[in-house]
Amino acid sequence: MGFFIDPCLIRALFALCILSIIFATSSSSAAAAGAKTRHFKWEVEYMHWSPDGLESVVMGINGQFPGPTIRARAGDTVHVELTNKLHTEGVVIHWHGIRQIGTPWADGTASISQCAINPGETFVYRFKVDRAGTYFYHGHYGMQRSAGLYGSLIVDVAEGEKEPFHYDGEFNILLSDWWHKSSHEQEVDLSSNPMRWIGEPQTLLINGRGQFNCSLAARFSSSSAARECRLRGNEQYAPHILRVQPNKTYRLRIASSTALASSTWFTTLFRSWPLGQKIGIGMLIKTGHAVDSFWRKHKLVVVEADGNYLRPVSVDNIDIYSGESYSVLFTTNQDPSNNYWLSINVRGREPKTPPGLTILNYRPTSASRLPNSPPPVSPRWDDYGSSKAFSNKILALTGTPKPPTTSDRRIVLLNTQNFIDGHTKWAINNVSLVLPPTPYLGSIRFGLSNVFDQKRPPDNFKHDYDVMRPAPNQNTTSGNGVYVLRFNTTIDVILQNANALRANVSEIHPWHLHGHDFWILGYGEGKFTESDVQKFNLKNPPYRNTAVIFPYGWTALRFVADNPGVWATATSSPICIWGWESFSRKAFDA
Amino acid sequence: MGFFIDPCLIRALFALCILSIIFATSSSSAAAAGAKTRHFKWEVEYMHWSPDGLESVVMGINGQFPGPTIRARAGDTVHVELTNKLHTEGVVIHWHGIRQIGTPWADGTASISQCAINPGETFVYRFKVDRAGTYFYHGHYGMQRSAGLYGSLIVDVAEGEKEPFHYDGEFNILLSDWWHKSSHEQEVDLSSNPMRWIGEPQTLLINGRGQFNCSLAARFSSSSAARECRLRGNEQYAPHILRVQPNKTYRLRIASSTALASSTWFTTLFRSWPLGQKIGIGMLIKTGHAVDSFWRKHKLVVVEADGNYLRPVSVDNIDIYSGESYSVLFTTNQDPSNNYWLSINVRGREPKTPPGLTILNYRPTSASRLPNSPPPVSPRWDDYGSSKAFSNKILALTGTPKPPTTSDRRIVLLNTQNFIDGHTKWAINNVSLVLPPTPYLGSIRFGLSNVFDQKRPPDNFKHDYDVMRPAPNQNTTSGNGVYVLRFNTTIDVILQNANALRANVSEIHPWHLHGHDFWILGYGEGKFTESDVQKFNLKNPPYRNTAVIFPYGWTALRFVADNPGVWATATSSPICIWGWESFSRKAFDA
Repeated sequence: MGFFIDPCLIRALFALCILSIIFATSSSSAAAAGAKTRHFKWEVEYMHWSPDGLESVVMGINGQFPGPTIRARAGDTVHVELTNKLHTEGVVIHWHGIRQIGTPWADGTASISQCAINPGETFVYRFKVDRAGTYFYHGHYGMQRSAGLYGSLIVDVAEGEKEPFHYDGEFNILLSDWWHKSSHEQEVDLSSNPMRWIGEPQTLLINGRGQFNCSLAARFSSSSAARECRLRGNEQYAPHILRVQPNKTYRLRIASSTALASSTWFTTLFRSWPLGQKIGIGMLIKTGHAVDSFWRKHKLVVVEADGNYLRPVSVDNIDIYSGESYSVLFTTNQDPSNNYWLSINVRGREPKTPPGLTILNYRPTSASRLPNSPPPVSPRWDDYGSSKAFSNKILALTGTPKPPTTSDRRIVLLNTQNFIDGHTKWAINNVSLVLPPTPYLGSIRFGLSNVFDQKRPPDNFKHDYDVMRPAPNQNTTSGNGVYVLRFNTTIDVILQNANALRANVSEIHPWHLHGHDFWILGYGEGKFTESDVQKFNLKNPPYRNTAVIFPYGWTALRFVADNPGVWATATSSPICIWGWESFSRKAFDA
Repeated sequence: MGFFIDPCLIRALFALCILSIIFATSSSSAAAAGAKTRHFKWEVEYMHWSPDGLESVVMGINGQFPGPTIRARAGDTVHVELTNKLHTEGVVIHWHGIRQIGTPWADGTASISQCAINPGETFVYRFKVDRAGTYFYHGHYGMQRSAGLYGSLIVDVAEGEKEPFHYDGEFNILLSDWWHKSSHEQEVDLSSNPMRWIGEPQTLLINGRGQFNCSLAARFSSSSAARECRLRGNEQYAPHILRVQPNKTYRLRIASSTALASSTWFTTLFRSWPLGQKIGIGMLIKTGHAVDSFWRKHKLVVVEADGNYLRPVSVDNIDIYSGESYSVLFTTNQDPSNNYWLSINVRGREPKTPPGLTILNYRPTSASRLPNSPPPVSPRWDDYGSSKAFSNKILALTGTPKPPTTSDRRIVLLNTQNFIDGHTKWAINNVSLVLPPTPYLGSIRFGLSNVFDQKRPPDNFKHDYDVMRPAPNQNTTSGNGVYVLRFNTTIDVILQNANALRANVSEIHPWHLHGHDFWILGYGEGKFTESDVQKFNLKNPPYRNTAVIFPYGWTALRFVADNPGVWATATSSPICIWGWESFSRKAFDA
């Protein structure tokens, strides 16, 4: 008989290590001038809820859906004591966009930074929010994000500091998508052989609220089937109304937690959005009226993305992909006797989901007075030209750190859809990630060599691979190796899109990096070539944690591997550790 | 801030301990003469399945539902290498009726004998099946039994040995109940405030097969709504036909895994069936025809219960409660040109679920030829007189070990239904069990005193409690203390039924003890009194692991605490350890 190592052992040792470091961290952070520790005590459990009027089961925190908003100031320490009140499921929470500098164990990625918190257990996430910005948090285990485990995390500037723009008030908008099929059943569907596609979401949610089988704008619809929503306003699915005073400037903080998180397609470092799946629901946000193009006058000035200031840019609408966040300013300079739509449409996928709607309510006009013309109309879902134009407008504010002018290493990551034994999987450079039960961070910290593949994943794909066509052999293999990066080196990552399984299909797809931001040096068409380096924007590339790849295109990122840890990243791709050796040596040598 | 102990640590230490003992055990068991080790490699995962014609998600093992049957001989070692292929849920498997002598860590009870096996992990269950009999296994975590995690475990007599009865062939029948609502949603319903009752099961399953929305016996129904099942015979929900030759004697092994396992009501020592819930679905089994009372001629001779031989008793039908098993012999002495029904009806609850049916097929008659008259009719669901009469007929075969004539300690366990903060709970002696995340077995083995209540639960309830009426105060508290029993002492347990929350409601309810069998010394009406001791049957009480309590009645059990460990038992009641001190001391002193 074989010998079965119990991962609990490793987990325990690791937990010990984490605890001791957490305590060390807490004392040092308490010393930061003016900074506070923000304490939260959360219980995660399933509950009945009606996100869109149809009662379902959602994953809530302290009886709320979405979870409570965390609000802190830059420099504060966030201390979340999370108790798992689920019956049989583990849980973790990832603090999306928080770089966890020096606290890789608090990143909240199951099998990467920690073991899932088991039922009945309590785990403390304690980390510093070092930088003002618009963030959010969400479950990072199985499909728990799809089940509704998410909420907002807003970091204000430190006391006495100022944002580089003015506003009189603000709103916080967290976007998500909702399926009526339970996340458990979605998970079984997606991991079936053959895969059963779960279809498009039934409803788009704004702050956890949407309307299914009725519309706020039914009266403007030519369809006789459109039913007006009858809302008293206190229902769980009544829209979150944005109440404004005329002639003021407001900051709209928007983050997108749209889902499709399947552990089948679960991934790491540069985790794709949706989780390991290449389909991101893009959203187009507008406010105003359709008929008189009023929204053109409600100009949106984009000033922040993923916690980094942008060169202010005025647009009519924004595209936001899963995992991204933006701050936009708008001025309430319209007729105050009217109300206005804020509408959300699906981008990049043929929309079978009605727009998400809420209302910009000019006080003292009644909030129940609907806008007097239809909601804004979105460009065609596949109008990638306008999406690319928007992405190219997003540039860093002067003063943002610039990227190093050269890199030490380039990793090209080819995104493909494949099969393993009939199961549909996503692969990176032809390897589909299967996470090991023992977290990488602990395995590496304690030098356990039998927990994951010791062979490093490839830095590139076959040079003759045709990204414009389905692969001749669509089968792939699984693995869980790790990219090891040297501490303080500069890494270029080229995200290379390709044709999916079917001919003439290539999908828009956002990627997210944990523990770091990266500069987006550029987007390109077709296969990336050496000459594309010349086109890199080294002057004012946006500094972000999430980037999109367009169909049949590539996106070039650069980052400095300066935060020791193991960090989640790409679709079915291996994970990354850098400086870990030196970090752990330091820990022992000290 | 508080200090949060990580249960993983304990788990790891515990795992180490278990591993070392397992290896010691395996070498010793291998030495047993003629005995074999039966190896099984199992993967647990959710899959699409149609247990009753309606596609649902079930928890399967190696792609099978119910799980594979384990077949071994007395004295063999069963070695199950269980890999958890679920995405976010832990899993354990309890080997119901196997006493786990010397292997308390293999009992498969989450939070009691082990931590749940986490996703991706493999755990080895290795234990000796010391005694021939009809057993089964099932999930023992949350509502995973309701999700379909169960299968048969049959132990034949050791090579060269004989059963004390003759038969020519045998059939194995595992009974269960099926809801169309997912077990996850049932769990949320049951733990809601106020509780949402999940209602009666949609279908009764025989070997995982039932028929919903159609009936094998529709042609005999007077209802025009009855629809004949159109089956080719290879569907997942086609009945499991029992094919017999005329004039032979068959052994029918029957076990009941009917469900309702809610961790809300999760329990320990003498775990109740359904898990911590006081509602057991009793089953009445008959074979034959209704019209000509043919089943009267297919006499059922009961010869085994829960792995113990019985004084053979001839009956027309048997009552079987969740957690029980029986072997019955029947002789195929009927007209061989006909086929016969085997029918299962709900007992003890007003039946809203149609009977479960299958066919006794006399070869060479075609199996597709339906019996020529309707299925047997069950007595009224609340005809407790006939149920009690059946239970009183179940007596031990001469030669079965007799109970000690006196006991060293008596524990009276009052079963009540209560509220905690509006949640419906079951309580024992007014304490409702909440399992600690760290398993008792490890906590006690390593002397951890902060993991569960160190205060012992009460051995009795208030003497003036009126079991015939709802409690004046229906609120209760939770706890997780432990009954500590001295090694080799004789314990009497009086299971005292009472009125449930509503007036004039008291329900039938089976209890199961882990790690031991007990003698059922008697059943009585009303509140147990000292004088009832005189009525105890010390001559030939049946030796079993599961016993029923009847409405407003009591059941008296006696057992010898001779198997060191921590063992699951009653509804919301604490657990039991005995001899543990001496056991662990021995382990350390050796």
